[in-house]
Amino acid sequence: MPAKEFEISKTFGVISEGDFQKEVNLISWNGRKEKIDIRGWNDTHTKCGKGIVLTTNEAKALREILNCMEL
Amino acid sequence: MPAKEFEISKTFGVISEGDFQKEVNLISWNGRKEKIDIRGWNDTHTKCGKGIVLTTNEAKALREILNCMEL
Repeated sequence: MPAKEFEISKTFGVISEGDFQKEVNLISWNGRKEKIDIRGWNDTHTKCGKGIVLTTNEAKALREILNCMEL
Repeated sequence: MPAKEFEISKTFGVISEGDFQKEVNLISWNGRKEKIDIRGWNDTHTKCGKGIVLTTNEAKALREILNCMEL
């Protein structure tokens, strides 16, 4: 899926590498407020896969859930 | 988006409530191997939003990234 209008202001980390590298970024989509974004990207960040956008509170909640999981 | 063929074998937690409640689940999509799945669902789990599917190793990597973030 071609990436719409977006701005990555910070990359927090890479989850996994591959054709579509899964990343955690701080992104403003279509000029809207920046949110934490988890999705896959091609190497030139011109295409992205489906993903999820989280507010800071949602990211905190996700962190708590993941910290309780036996992985 | 109507949810395709899936089976939720475990719900790890709810990230946020709302029309589409964002959840972390263990899901098998279309009979494939179960994976950790982060996305929004309606209350009857008949519709879901876009989300992301992670292997256990990817979920570990995401957890590490989130634990290093100042939220």
